[in-house]
Amino acid sequence: MNKILPTAKLDAPNRFREADRPHSPLVAFGPDKPLQLDAGIELSPFQIAYQTYGVLNAARSNAILICHALTGDQHVANVHPVTGKPGWWETMVGPGRPIDTERYFVICPNVVGACMGTSGPSSTNPETGAPWGLDFPVITIRDMVRAQAMLLDHLGIEQLFSIAGGSMGGMQVLQWCASYPDRVFSALPLATSTRHSAQNIAFHEVGRQAVMADPGWRQGRYIVEGADPRRGLAVARMGAHITYLSDAALHRKFGRKFQDRNNPTFSFDADFEVENYLRHQGSTFVERFDANSYLYLTRAMDYFDLAADYGGIVANAFRGSRTRFCVISFTSDWLFPTSDSRAIVHALNASSARVSFAEIETDRGHDAFLLDEPELLTIVRGFLQSAGRARGLEPE
Amino acid sequence: MNKILPTAKLDAPNRFREADRPHSPLVAFGPDKPLQLDAGIELSPFQIAYQTYGVLNAARSNAILICHALTGDQHVANVHPVTGKPGWWETMVGPGRPIDTERYFVICPNVVGACMGTSGPSSTNPETGAPWGLDFPVITIRDMVRAQAMLLDHLGIEQLFSIAGGSMGGMQVLQWCASYPDRVFSALPLATSTRHSAQNIAFHEVGRQAVMADPGWRQGRYIVEGADPRRGLAVARMGAHITYLSDAALHRKFGRKFQDRNNPTFSFDADFEVENYLRHQGSTFVERFDANSYLYLTRAMDYFDLAADYGGIVANAFRGSRTRFCVISFTSDWLFPTSDSRAIVHALNASSARVSFAEIETDRGHDAFLLDEPELLTIVRGFLQSAGRARGLEPE
Repeated sequence: MNKILPTAKLDAPNRFREADRPHSPLVAFGPDKPLQLDAGIELSPFQIAYQTYGVLNAARSNAILICHALTGDQHVANVHPVTGKPGWWETMVGPGRPIDTERYFVICPNVVGACMGTSGPSSTNPETGAPWGLDFPVITIRDMVRAQAMLLDHLGIEQLFSIAGGSMGGMQVLQWCASYPDRVFSALPLATSTRHSAQNIAFHEVGRQAVMADPGWRQGRYIVEGADPRRGLAVARMGAHITYLSDAALHRKFGRKFQDRNNPTFSFDADFEVENYLRHQGSTFVERFDANSYLYLTRAMDYFDLAADYGGIVANAFRGSRTRFCVISFTSDWLFPTSDSRAIVHALNASSARVSFAEIETDRGHDAFLLDEPELLTIVRGFLQSAGRARGLEPE
Repeated sequence: MNKILPTAKLDAPNRFREADRPHSPLVAFGPDKPLQLDAGIELSPFQIAYQTYGVLNAARSNAILICHALTGDQHVANVHPVTGKPGWWETMVGPGRPIDTERYFVICPNVVGACMGTSGPSSTNPETGAPWGLDFPVITIRDMVRAQAMLLDHLGIEQLFSIAGGSMGGMQVLQWCASYPDRVFSALPLATSTRHSAQNIAFHEVGRQAVMADPGWRQGRYIVEGADPRRGLAVARMGAHITYLSDAALHRKFGRKFQDRNNPTFSFDADFEVENYLRHQGSTFVERFDANSYLYLTRAMDYFDLAADYGGIVANAFRGSRTRFCVISFTSDWLFPTSDSRAIVHALNASSARVSFAEIETDRGHDAFLLDEPELLTIVRGFLQSAGRARGLEPE
């Protein structure tokens, strides 16, 4: 765990500083190393903020890249500098955990377009000295992956032992395996898809409209103008949060229980516990996340369609791949349902790739990949140990 | 079809007039006939706007009550006075249709809390002379039904031959059968539930928050203050609309097709057809619907829990009922899934009621009950013909 993290929670004004001067190691790429974007332009200069855990071995063969999801960041297994809360994947990553930081060198970069130190819409545009806002170019999953490859070049890591991520993180995992097959020894795409469905695009569009409907959004210029589209962003988060859970999990947790009382109030207060829970999800989210980044990253997910770059056939993206895959889905995930993971597996089978697949029984919905799911942890541990033996990281 | 409907679409200012002076027949209940509300207060005076189709027979035995859903109204089978569009259930209701206006006398009242002429938050508060806004009392499904019973008393109809409705309309159907079992000869609860689930409450709460986050909402005083929370209401409608469809239907209709072009624009325009469709749904909705009514009616649905009034056991609500039920659900409806309808059927079986049940195979989601679904139309026609023979409306 690196030492530049603050010990206490940052106040709201300080969180904006994370975009330029994060509490994370940073690599700045100058004019000689522009990021080539799918939009057809070059982003330069730009920077990547990242966290690392564990030690890179002498053979440089034990690196694992973690790809974060839409609202995640690089703070996988350390206290978050803005919220003061534990890292988002401490059940999975750490000493003795399945992604064991005593064995592996773990790297997690903040993605391009996000707001925790890698260049994004809340970063300072070097040409104007003001935050980019909507002048920041629209980015794609492939752009994120291209930037991560430049980070690995900088760190002197030619091949990853493994790469893991769920949801938008899983999209990056799949894109890595397609774009740089020789750089990925093994891969764990979790609760993800080779393309975003019409329903998922629709949910994202509602979230974007909620942000843009907030007069505090100011056409994306809220930082410069001292405004804040926090209510719109909170509504977007509330709506999205429902899609991360399952009806069964909501029923188990909340049912129709009233908040702090036994009867309805006949008002528009948060009468039901589930309403109060959602309002809390919305209000805590806006303390740590940038509204424009929410627009950019949802857009990147919507654009993701791996087959489109390979003649409409996903299997072509993995043709000749020697990467070992472990694909995992969750029974109650209706955002990235098991059928999406099966489609990945079929494509990998069609391209003769080495793949194992598990559908894990749980009622916790899409969020299950982030949670303390014993079967998930066991499968990831076993897959990495097996891949580690094949890679010569562990005794046969 | 009554004759006071306008032939052309109303402009926006005129739509607010519908709340007090609708293009529909009206019954005004004076101080001698208050509406007793579940909130423990009396609403008085109040009014009900309704449409009728067909002719009441001499025995007054051929009346069918239609209960509309959240965003529906009384304009079942005539041109809508605000939008100029056809009635919302013309596939089901009309001459020669399954609910045949040449045989039956069809009544559809606007529900209490709505905005098309029955008292609601956009109606004039007689005490102040200004629109009620949030001073209008919070109402329940049972309050809607109690008001409808007063309308039937006024029309001199002791017993309904049948009652039909989907979604929130189906909740009213179930409440009618529980509150006034002797007044309902047969009943068609479609795509509905005896209680709103935690997930559905959650989706409603996001919609309410979207409305209330709009600064044009003005704490519900937007009519008086000349404001309009149209963007917030449009966002609420967009989010809700996704839940009325199915992933499969969205995929079939839109897939990942781009709007008017073959490639992404790398912008936040409506790139995908599904985005454009949703934006259209949002913007047309706000032309005809009142934002506060949206709050009140979603709240009424959230509060609905039929078992709560009957010792926690739904079957008790139907104990001794002689009503003939036909319960219908749709395979791809994830908002009111078949399991909800099965729970209704089990409760009816447990109370020895007469019930038939059909789950209709379709990919059109919750909205299927409104659409031209041949199997739905056939089943409703057959059920009413059979019930009509039992009621002596048709030759044996």
